[in-house]
Amino acid sequence: MYYRDLREHIAALEENGKLVRVTREINKDTELMPLVRWQFRGLPEEDRKAFLFENVVDVKGRRYKIPVLVASHAASKQVYALGMKCKPEEVMEKWAQAQLHRIEPKMIEYSPVHDEIHMGDRLFEHGGLEELPVPISTPGFDNAPYFTCANWVSRDPETGIRNVGNYRAMIKAPGRTGIHCQGVQHLAIHWEKCRQRGIPLQAAISIGVSPAISFAAVTRIPYGIDEYAVAGGIAGEPIELVKCKTVDLEVPASAEITIEGEFPTDSMEREAPFGEFTGYIGAEDINPYFNVKCITHRKDPIYNAFISQFPPSESSKIREYGQEATFYKFLKYDCNIPGIIDVGFFEASGSQGYCVIRMKKFSPAHPWQALNGAVAFVGSYPKIVVAVDEDIDPKDPDSVNWALTFRVQAHRDVRVSTGRVGNLDPSTAPLDGSEGDRRYPPPTGASALLIDATTKWPYPPVSLPRKEYMENAKRLWEELGLPRLKPKVPWHGYTLGYWTEENMAEAELALKGEHFQTGEKLAENRIKS
Amino acid sequence: MYYRDLREHIAALEENGKLVRVTREINKDTELMPLVRWQFRGLPEEDRKAFLFENVVDVKGRRYKIPVLVASHAASKQVYALGMKCKPEEVMEKWAQAQLHRIEPKMIEYSPVHDEIHMGDRLFEHGGLEELPVPISTPGFDNAPYFTCANWVSRDPETGIRNVGNYRAMIKAPGRTGIHCQGVQHLAIHWEKCRQRGIPLQAAISIGVSPAISFAAVTRIPYGIDEYAVAGGIAGEPIELVKCKTVDLEVPASAEITIEGEFPTDSMEREAPFGEFTGYIGAEDINPYFNVKCITHRKDPIYNAFISQFPPSESSKIREYGQEATFYKFLKYDCNIPGIIDVGFFEASGSQGYCVIRMKKFSPAHPWQALNGAVAFVGSYPKIVVAVDEDIDPKDPDSVNWALTFRVQAHRDVRVSTGRVGNLDPSTAPLDGSEGDRRYPPPTGASALLIDATTKWPYPPVSLPRKEYMENAKRLWEELGLPRLKPKVPWHGYTLGYWTEENMAEAELALKGEHFQTGEKLAENRIKS
Repeated sequence: MYYRDLREHIAALEENGKLVRVTREINKDTELMPLVRWQFRGLPEEDRKAFLFENVVDVKGRRYKIPVLVASHAASKQVYALGMKCKPEEVMEKWAQAQLHRIEPKMIEYSPVHDEIHMGDRLFEHGGLEELPVPISTPGFDNAPYFTCANWVSRDPETGIRNVGNYRAMIKAPGRTGIHCQGVQHLAIHWEKCRQRGIPLQAAISIGVSPAISFAAVTRIPYGIDEYAVAGGIAGEPIELVKCKTVDLEVPASAEITIEGEFPTDSMEREAPFGEFTGYIGAEDINPYFNVKCITHRKDPIYNAFISQFPPSESSKIREYGQEATFYKFLKYDCNIPGIIDVGFFEASGSQGYCVIRMKKFSPAHPWQALNGAVAFVGSYPKIVVAVDEDIDPKDPDSVNWALTFRVQAHRDVRVSTGRVGNLDPSTAPLDGSEGDRRYPPPTGASALLIDATTKWPYPPVSLPRKEYMENAKRLWEELGLPRLKPKVPWHGYTLGYWTEENMAEAELALKGEHFQTGEKLAENRIKS
Repeated sequence: MYYRDLREHIAALEENGKLVRVTREINKDTELMPLVRWQFRGLPEEDRKAFLFENVVDVKGRRYKIPVLVASHAASKQVYALGMKCKPEEVMEKWAQAQLHRIEPKMIEYSPVHDEIHMGDRLFEHGGLEELPVPISTPGFDNAPYFTCANWVSRDPETGIRNVGNYRAMIKAPGRTGIHCQGVQHLAIHWEKCRQRGIPLQAAISIGVSPAISFAAVTRIPYGIDEYAVAGGIAGEPIELVKCKTVDLEVPASAEITIEGEFPTDSMEREAPFGEFTGYIGAEDINPYFNVKCITHRKDPIYNAFISQFPPSESSKIREYGQEATFYKFLKYDCNIPGIIDVGFFEASGSQGYCVIRMKKFSPAHPWQALNGAVAFVGSYPKIVVAVDEDIDPKDPDSVNWALTFRVQAHRDVRVSTGRVGNLDPSTAPLDGSEGDRRYPPPTGASALLIDATTKWPYPPVSLPRKEYMENAKRLWEELGLPRLKPKVPWHGYTLGYWTEENMAEAELALKGEHFQTGEKLAENRIKS
């Protein structure tokens, strides 16, 4: 059975030692996010946890009844796997299966998210959005508190097909938010279609849902595929939905809080600056805005936020695994490249900009098929794509840099792919507008760097002692009482195609102390200079 | 006062907790290097140490009187700094000063390295080279024991100018070694000049010297500059030399062991395979060979070896700092680029292939001047050169990958530099000779990838909370008794040029809880869609 709601998920985090409860008073505007942030700048990944703040105040001295849960989805891969209800090493396969075996959601009549309803004349009876303890994510730079874990649902006015997506939302007034949503993002397509029809776009936000929904909402699921059904695939059972009170949409019954309303399409507003997953403040931009019509929540709701900003952060990590799984499925099954083994995104690239494809190539064209495929799936990322052999770890920068150094000749193995757009990417064009559109400035828009870092012919072995000598030395190491080892791959030599019978025979002679025999052979075969 | 000899250096390592003494019996051929190797595959750098093996046997059951010291030069940056007699953070500056203020060596009459002399009829009285416990570095792949920490001295037959360099040397017979030395390497130039004159090349090997000599010998010092004088610059006093017994050369008086002899120049021999710093076995190759005429050593000598092979290893790390310092001096002072701050080589590239130049640019041409300069200094490496801004850590792959992702557009900022040669680089050409010369195969030889990863215009701030909020949160973190932090840079937001007065004012309003004022302003400035 999957988590029925956020509370079951919190219990699982706590049981597994992955929850920090903070009972002392914490200021949501100045203290909360900086505190959680420290674990991403100062702890190894395996020590990072979710944080539940039970005693929250703000800079105006207001005290909130509602606790704040942060980093519950993706403080680490271990925390992410808990949300998926699988082991860390099973995440990729679970994601692949969820895409291949989607489970349609089911409607139910009642949800506790409707236990308390503020709408119409009573919309602001508890302060509207001010009832919610929305933290400031990047104090000193952000211009407001923002929703970071808002699961937005909206509908294509033409086809009626639903989309669920995660978009940041600036709190602009007790009854109004912004959104960052542009170009080919799915809610932006809905908004544009409504604009052309001269009607507003209805939407609803769910906060504090069972985690499968957030995992699906942050992932690049093709247009027209229902994220609730992908979430069902992760959960292994249908996601339960209820009807909204004021808009024609369905929201998860598991939610702690739901916000309903509509986007005017006749005008737009500025939103941001806001600290983004790219490692930079997302600069101010013109975007749609959202008028709230109804706020519903449980009797004692819990507010849930992602911690965003400089990678690694929860917002890069939650994207990472779904991203890897969707690129993996696309390259292997849709592009028909059988040797694809693994796809990794470096967290330093916001888990989006730098993609490494691990593969066993059966043809010299396979790496290029994969490299071109990786820039065919999304128009804005990745910006660097590297194809590597099966012995390279695509998540380890040292391993990838080793392949880049000794398996690449730049004039032969590097190409540039142009005609792309920038997304929250300050390298595309100046922010002051002096070179026009910051997403696709003339003359060539944005571009990606493609590198085939696979070996092009048989290579000599990896220069480490053969496995049995390293295993024996590990026993000696332990016997000598030396500090505990955390072995990093590779820890022994292995062959890569170029290793002759003569090479083998000489190595064996050396291990018998008979290398002078080799020396004599070499002397007999001297070459005149 | 600098270390007089290896023994003073060993005492300093031990005093500083950087020496592991192994008294149990260790097999030099199968156990010794694999044991030390584990610390490079399983321990954090700061925990790595030098190893002194006091009870050494070999695969034939022979017991050696001579102990073996490994990783004493560069088990870690801390160990390297001990050898330099400075703090780890002073290494770059100490290296720069040593290059700018060389100190000429001085001749002395007597050295204990001449306490025992084997030459002429008595060359083999203790077995010749078999007296020395030379370990097999990569058991299972190497075809013999090799000298790894041999400081070779030889002389240009035309100018008489001396060169000291570190070259690997296969033990081929009790009185003969190989060498790996080709192309533009300085001993290879001496050899070629002797060949043209029809004479052999005299040379001598010093083993177990005061560490400044090894630091200089592994570093790319321009032709004609005496490495003994650079070593003197490091030591802060003249290196003491003594005359050889059978060749017209000078060797360090501090040495434990000296081997004299000559290279025939009328023929060459095959040497290798040997596990190299590139992470691959250096394949068999045709090279000069060396006939031993005289072996001298102290009464109770200590044998000294580098641990080579897959990076990080001692052989990559010992090269690293001298390399960084020589590129730094070249780019800043010789190429006249004033904004050069730092140069880093990734260990994953054998501390040679992947170079990152940290700089403050005063012109958009400065990064390109530096990138072109970096491939003008040596014809074979680096293979990847990246110029970064001053806020990027050139030794941290995450920091560099972050810059590569969000400060680069490939079509604008990437170039390929051709006309280069490969050096122990399997990507240049197949090893089986099917594409000709493996160093410069047609049509374009080897190449380098140059990337300007500096920002091209003002950027928005780094998305982390402002410093004071992170500092306050760190106090809270500690007060809550959370696990000890190891802060990684950056741990707070900072501006990068694009941050307006209005941005600042809005961030301040948010921190007063007055962000609805901003919301109202944005509503008043709506834009018709």
